[in-house]
Amino acid sequence: MTSHPKNVGILAMDIYFPPTCVRQEALEVHDDVSKGKYTIGLGQDCLAFCTEVEDVISMSLTAVRSLLEKYQINPTQIGHLEVGSETVIDKSKSIKTFLMQIFEECGNTDIEGVDSTNACYGGTAALFNCVNWVESSSWDGRYGLVVCTDSAVYAEGPARPTGGAAAIAMLIGPDAPIAFESKLRGSHMSHAYDFYKPNLASEYPVVDGKLSQTCYLMALDSCYKRLCEKFEKFEGRQFSMLDADYFVFHSPYNKLVQKSFARLYFNDFVRNASSVDEVAKEKLAPFSALSDDESYQSRDLEKASQQVAKQLYDLQVQPSTLIPKQVGNMYTASLYAALASLLHDKHSSLAGKRVIMFSYGSGLTATMFSFKLQDGQHPFSLSNIVKVMDISLKLKSRHEFPPEKFVDTMKLMEHRYGAKDFVTSKDSSLLLPGTYYLTEVDSMYRRFYAKKANSTTTSTCENSVLINGS
Amino acid sequence: MTSHPKNVGILAMDIYFPPTCVRQEALEVHDDVSKGKYTIGLGQDCLAFCTEVEDVISMSLTAVRSLLEKYQINPTQIGHLEVGSETVIDKSKSIKTFLMQIFEECGNTDIEGVDSTNACYGGTAALFNCVNWVESSSWDGRYGLVVCTDSAVYAEGPARPTGGAAAIAMLIGPDAPIAFESKLRGSHMSHAYDFYKPNLASEYPVVDGKLSQTCYLMALDSCYKRLCEKFEKFEGRQFSMLDADYFVFHSPYNKLVQKSFARLYFNDFVRNASSVDEVAKEKLAPFSALSDDESYQSRDLEKASQQVAKQLYDLQVQPSTLIPKQVGNMYTASLYAALASLLHDKHSSLAGKRVIMFSYGSGLTATMFSFKLQDGQHPFSLSNIVKVMDISLKLKSRHEFPPEKFVDTMKLMEHRYGAKDFVTSKDSSLLLPGTYYLTEVDSMYRRFYAKKANSTTTSTCENSVLINGS
Repeated sequence: MTSHPKNVGILAMDIYFPPTCVRQEALEVHDDVSKGKYTIGLGQDCLAFCTEVEDVISMSLTAVRSLLEKYQINPTQIGHLEVGSETVIDKSKSIKTFLMQIFEECGNTDIEGVDSTNACYGGTAALFNCVNWVESSSWDGRYGLVVCTDSAVYAEGPARPTGGAAAIAMLIGPDAPIAFESKLRGSHMSHAYDFYKPNLASEYPVVDGKLSQTCYLMALDSCYKRLCEKFEKFEGRQFSMLDADYFVFHSPYNKLVQKSFARLYFNDFVRNASSVDEVAKEKLAPFSALSDDESYQSRDLEKASQQVAKQLYDLQVQPSTLIPKQVGNMYTASLYAALASLLHDKHSSLAGKRVIMFSYGSGLTATMFSFKLQDGQHPFSLSNIVKVMDISLKLKSRHEFPPEKFVDTMKLMEHRYGAKDFVTSKDSSLLLPGTYYLTEVDSMYRRFYAKKANSTTTSTCENSVLINGS
Repeated sequence: MTSHPKNVGILAMDIYFPPTCVRQEALEVHDDVSKGKYTIGLGQDCLAFCTEVEDVISMSLTAVRSLLEKYQINPTQIGHLEVGSETVIDKSKSIKTFLMQIFEECGNTDIEGVDSTNACYGGTAALFNCVNWVESSSWDGRYGLVVCTDSAVYAEGPARPTGGAAAIAMLIGPDAPIAFESKLRGSHMSHAYDFYKPNLASEYPVVDGKLSQTCYLMALDSCYKRLCEKFEKFEGRQFSMLDADYFVFHSPYNKLVQKSFARLYFNDFVRNASSVDEVAKEKLAPFSALSDDESYQSRDLEKASQQVAKQLYDLQVQPSTLIPKQVGNMYTASLYAALASLLHDKHSSLAGKRVIMFSYGSGLTATMFSFKLQDGQHPFSLSNIVKVMDISLKLKSRHEFPPEKFVDTMKLMEHRYGAKDFVTSKDSSLLLPGTYYLTEVDSMYRRFYAKKANSTTTSTCENSVLINGS
């Protein structure tokens, strides 16, 4: 009889986002909308996007290779690889099989796992699958690896400024500095058409923005209720927001994160939890009789709850908002980019802290779950993760494109989506060393990538150009 | 500290395939190919296909509802639901969220899991994910549910007769009659372009038939080698094919299954395993010096190894071939339809037997794994599973379409793929009671389904018409 290994979770992380971005302020001017519509209305600063030499496959190759090199993990030490993505380049062949190129070089083809799909939730599903593998009787002692990779692009119109792009790689195993509290979890899944991609020839989704926001908040309520119930069952006392140190949300745009945290605060008010002080109780009292439906529609409640939750938001949420505000919606990677932001901001002071995560994918699937953080042993320590990710450098190394050039890129990408028989500019001048980029899609739709040379080579199994593996 | 529950595996199964089919003999005449090209060359008897009222969502709704009813499982008892499919109707919204309609009716929205994707391997990934959940510290004591659903359709040409369609639902939990031997498993995953779906607007794949067959056999060799190594490590003696009672293969067409089994036999010959007798050794001796590459290309070896393996094939493989030959390639469901065929053929005589499964998905991902079978307790017994699936009735109730009508259906489906704003005939006359069918896709691409009434209603949470859940 075997037992579960202890403290399974995230041992190491790396994040990649394109160095090409557009400022939301400049987009406001270009789109001729009222000043502040994107920066204050959406709460966003900047939007990263893939140019013609990048896509979800190149970004994930970059993130995986970088993680393996920087934490000095030999590719043969990986036994499970799961990818979460909603950016479909091929409807059958998984992104995971493209990543196998990195492992095949080292003779490791014995790696379970495929791609998990449901909108922005696929990364969380991939993470759960990988953690469950480590805790299962099938675990062979090797590491798991989870990759979230997405390019969020929208047709011209109000949703376009909520785009973004990134890939995140996470190493999974026992004794992790970011460990799951596996009993503290609540899910809410149902059938909804809030955001979906039924137009197969187009990269753009069909979005009902208002419905999606309501679905998000309803799922949040339901997950929070279930998480509270689980806590109360195991701990024998009521859960309040003060039992967590930080809350990290899936972040389509920052304003929704502000609304979500305020909504949790309203939940605590309704539950009569200890986190809500007398002043707040008084301010929220007028809303206590609202039905659920009414409460999702009430702008007054939204305003009042954001106001009373503001101080706690600055403490418990603000530190996780940097990358989502600077890069935009990264779909499956958004939640983990927010976690990366929190690590970047608070690093080793997070030891001993509880972080509550809320993952949402339209359609819809949602889970609220909990991490307990500890210092960890080098190289798998909070401080080393922060050092490896080097988020400040990555943000500083970006190139701001004027909105016209961003729009031109979107137009080119519309033509390229699902296309074959073209070569790219192969221009890697804007990319950091070590970045993979797309060079060609041949007449059989086969995709070829190259890698911009590293300044130093640290891995034993290193090739600078990938050969098509078929 | 908690331990893994014992004998986690498949507690219950049900299978659904469309009642509409075309005979391969008739297709041979219609396509003006040599007699026997499909029936002997491919080894196929019949091909099932979805008409305009069925798709992967309706088939999976039917299979799930039927399983819950026939084994009297309350939908609230399900805690995890994973879907494997490579038939993309929406690139973001998972098939799992459509299935949530069945559970939402009963107030159960707390069900983890999404869709797993990599060609025909997605169902196996879903199964592993579900089993790992039961063995993880996150397990809450409820059942898991795995659904494999696919419609395999090909452009006119040599691959078209290898189509098929089906959905399978499998209930997962401890003390299963079909239990995993979790340590006996070997995977092989790599980057290949043997079969893929890069043309996003078309339901049809890009296929390199010859490459795909070689990839399949290479992956088979690699997985078998790893499984043998694991067995030898744990048991301290050499593995031979006689250590298994049955071999069940992913079945794109039966001829490849015959070749695969012969290939395993050749592996045992090269490994000098006890399964190969003196006569066979003599017949295979001329091929012992072939390189791997040469051995995949040698028609003489293929012929000789099939000949010497024939007797063992009839014992160890033949009983699993009924549904794959009668229904065709069911992609993710193919391997489990082959397992269902074995249960149908051998039912409770399988108690105590070891069944080796080989799952393959182009792109490519492959795993060979092992089940140990036991009688089980009603309703989760081998004999009840056979009774519930009632494969003879399902095969007998089918309607053979003439090839012209099959071709017309394929043409209509080409237009309908990815389309919006249409109503179907709503003709359910050919469907068995309890079958879901597509009625409409509205101007927002939202899909509506109805259910043909059951003769009897056994579930507590039963509605005959689904309302769009958004």
